[in-house]
Amino acid sequence: MVENIGMKPSRRGFLRTALAGGGALAVGSTAARAEGDPVILEPRPWNQFLGEGVDARPYGFPSEHEAHVRRQDVPWLTADPISSVNFTPLHELDGIITPNGLCFERHHGGIAEVDPAEHRLMINGLVDRQIVLTMQDLMRFPRENHVYFLECAANTGMEWAGSQLNGCQFTHGMIHNVMYTGIPLRLILAEAGVKPSGSWILVEGADASGMTRSIPMEKALDDCLVAFKMNGEALRPEQGYPVRLVVPGWEGNMWIKWLRRIEVGDQPWHHREETSKYTDLLADGRARRFTWEMDAKSVITNPSPQAPITHGPGPTVLTGVAWSGRGTIPRVDVTLDGGINWHDARMSGPSFNKSMHRFYFEFNWDGQPMLLQSRAHDSTGYVQPTKNQLREIRGENSIYHNNGIQTWAVDKDGRAENVEIS
Amino acid sequence: MVENIGMKPSRRGFLRTALAGGGALAVGSTAARAEGDPVILEPRPWNQFLGEGVDARPYGFPSEHEAHVRRQDVPWLTADPISSVNFTPLHELDGIITPNGLCFERHHGGIAEVDPAEHRLMINGLVDRQIVLTMQDLMRFPRENHVYFLECAANTGMEWAGSQLNGCQFTHGMIHNVMYTGIPLRLILAEAGVKPSGSWILVEGADASGMTRSIPMEKALDDCLVAFKMNGEALRPEQGYPVRLVVPGWEGNMWIKWLRRIEVGDQPWHHREETSKYTDLLADGRARRFTWEMDAKSVITNPSPQAPITHGPGPTVLTGVAWSGRGTIPRVDVTLDGGINWHDARMSGPSFNKSMHRFYFEFNWDGQPMLLQSRAHDSTGYVQPTKNQLREIRGENSIYHNNGIQTWAVDKDGRAENVEIS
Repeated sequence: MVENIGMKPSRRGFLRTALAGGGALAVGSTAARAEGDPVILEPRPWNQFLGEGVDARPYGFPSEHEAHVRRQDVPWLTADPISSVNFTPLHELDGIITPNGLCFERHHGGIAEVDPAEHRLMINGLVDRQIVLTMQDLMRFPRENHVYFLECAANTGMEWAGSQLNGCQFTHGMIHNVMYTGIPLRLILAEAGVKPSGSWILVEGADASGMTRSIPMEKALDDCLVAFKMNGEALRPEQGYPVRLVVPGWEGNMWIKWLRRIEVGDQPWHHREETSKYTDLLADGRARRFTWEMDAKSVITNPSPQAPITHGPGPTVLTGVAWSGRGTIPRVDVTLDGGINWHDARMSGPSFNKSMHRFYFEFNWDGQPMLLQSRAHDSTGYVQPTKNQLREIRGENSIYHNNGIQTWAVDKDGRAENVEIS
Repeated sequence: MVENIGMKPSRRGFLRTALAGGGALAVGSTAARAEGDPVILEPRPWNQFLGEGVDARPYGFPSEHEAHVRRQDVPWLTADPISSVNFTPLHELDGIITPNGLCFERHHGGIAEVDPAEHRLMINGLVDRQIVLTMQDLMRFPRENHVYFLECAANTGMEWAGSQLNGCQFTHGMIHNVMYTGIPLRLILAEAGVKPSGSWILVEGADASGMTRSIPMEKALDDCLVAFKMNGEALRPEQGYPVRLVVPGWEGNMWIKWLRRIEVGDQPWHHREETSKYTDLLADGRARRFTWEMDAKSVITNPSPQAPITHGPGPTVLTGVAWSGRGTIPRVDVTLDGGINWHDARMSGPSFNKSMHRFYFEFNWDGQPMLLQSRAHDSTGYVQPTKNQLREIRGENSIYHNNGIQTWAVDKDGRAENVEIS
């Protein structure tokens, strides 16, 4: 991941280099501040008085000045808060790691508060020996560490019908990206001994919704993890504490939380959550049976409706995230004029398989209105489509798997709005 | 980072494969549980009743069952809690990311609660133009994302005199490893324009201790970052919110928190924190002037005094962390018998420059006492020394920069203790 923005140490300033004359704007304002800025000339309380000591926060929390950085739901979108969803504040984040406290939530029966001492993982069905594992038993299996994105199949779903939600937190915030520590699922299946006829697994959660999904054995033996840590510490209760399934690159509802049972069978179960939900209705009335993989997708997080440009014309940093359930993201294109001209974005940070990627585009804003879009290319060569290209193939009945290109319209005051352009 | 523990899908269980006959122990116990374990046979509350909804936690927190996972200080070690330190619970973590709430703290004037709207960064001294930057000004510079460890120079310092602190949290917990988003320092220096005579910088914090350190210009122009985010979100107050300096691979006290001023000069300042502290007194009474880089080091986090083996003999997972201020960690050796036999540990997770690395060693514990040690090799070829090798060169007056090999003695009951063997 060691990358460099490609600027050599220079005696000329970045802002001036980037701007020529225009740079005087920013430079002038900062130089002026040096003369009479009371905030730098007068001591502030934190310069003068000792702060709290190390006993104050055995487990830390954000500054009070960051109270606006929080998960939010959309009341009209989901009336019932128990079977509901909230959204990651993508416009307030940077890099590729989603902090545990801000990972979006999707529950079918609310947050299960599981006591790990009383949690068990059963492996049954077409196995040599049905087994039941305690958390301590799980700690005796080999572990791996991987960073993966988890995206809800319904992320951006409301946008099928047009531009409805005014902020990337709401249009694209059903995603998070964390480092998991877990046990390769194939090792746990091998412990029970999968019978030759075992070709599917049913994974079941311990929460009140009894969430279940069918997963083909090929995927189960490939890269699935039985995970117990996220970003170094125990899973959060809302993310499946003490143990969840990780299904890299596949839709989030398959990543069963509070994982309590894995049944081995010879065909899919077609349970509630893979028939009444999480199927894609096509234009001709037929529905896709399964849509597991999340296609390549990207979104500009800044500027965006919740994060307008407030500094006026001049040097401006555009940033966003991109991901693919099929590999890495070697390239993201960015346009400021609705697709007339495309520019290569600068990727910065680790590029992991089936993980979120961070991109930047630094430009000198002239203060005129813009139409911002990003377009992801994944390592298979797939290019993120427009919404209309998706509609041509999938019709307009869909809710799930909308990976179309998102447009933000920025006005001359820097305000951004969710719009759609043909 | 995509690595594999190298086990192919198999019809034979891992525990059995690893153990031959001994495997029956673990397998038998789990199989037995399947028959009459009330915890799997009877419904638990979280299976029966709906949990809290998505409105409950706009910013999430760990399960109540993880309340023991916390930063801790050592009262007798530092009498004054304001100018003090606490320790990262390494034995409770896995992977390589330290969650923000558990990153150890070291303050010289307590936690500064800075209002970002009233924070400024001044660049002065041997520059073409003194400038003062607001947080908004900083947001207009290009950013990079990198994962780096931060280790206090005093980490493991108490162990110079022998084995004193009984737990890796206390012997090695003055370290954390996070992904930073920040601005290359060279771009900010270029904005002010460094004069040809500018060969050093003085970095100063906005807290009540007025913490300062001198840094050579070569390092400042190399990989230093002016960082405003850690693990995706804003820096925590105790880690320098709203902005801190990142000095990759160098001792933690140079990573000035609440960064408010950077002065360019033509020689080091020799301020308080680089003379009265953070210098290494040698055996002959002379002191090293500067010791910036952190040498290659490792520690076994599990088993350890705070994390004994509780499952009895049989398949056991040993794990730990390793790092180097000079590069990556391609290899870690592990011994179970105090250095008579060394084994290659399995590295798992990303290998980044100047970042923490995670290693594992799975073995079949015979229930006999063990002497556990780990030995890190870094990408420069440097090998982590024994404590006695360090003492031969540095004497016994030192407090800082102890990267000696750590030993845990495990008894037949699985209890671990901090010991030293010659």
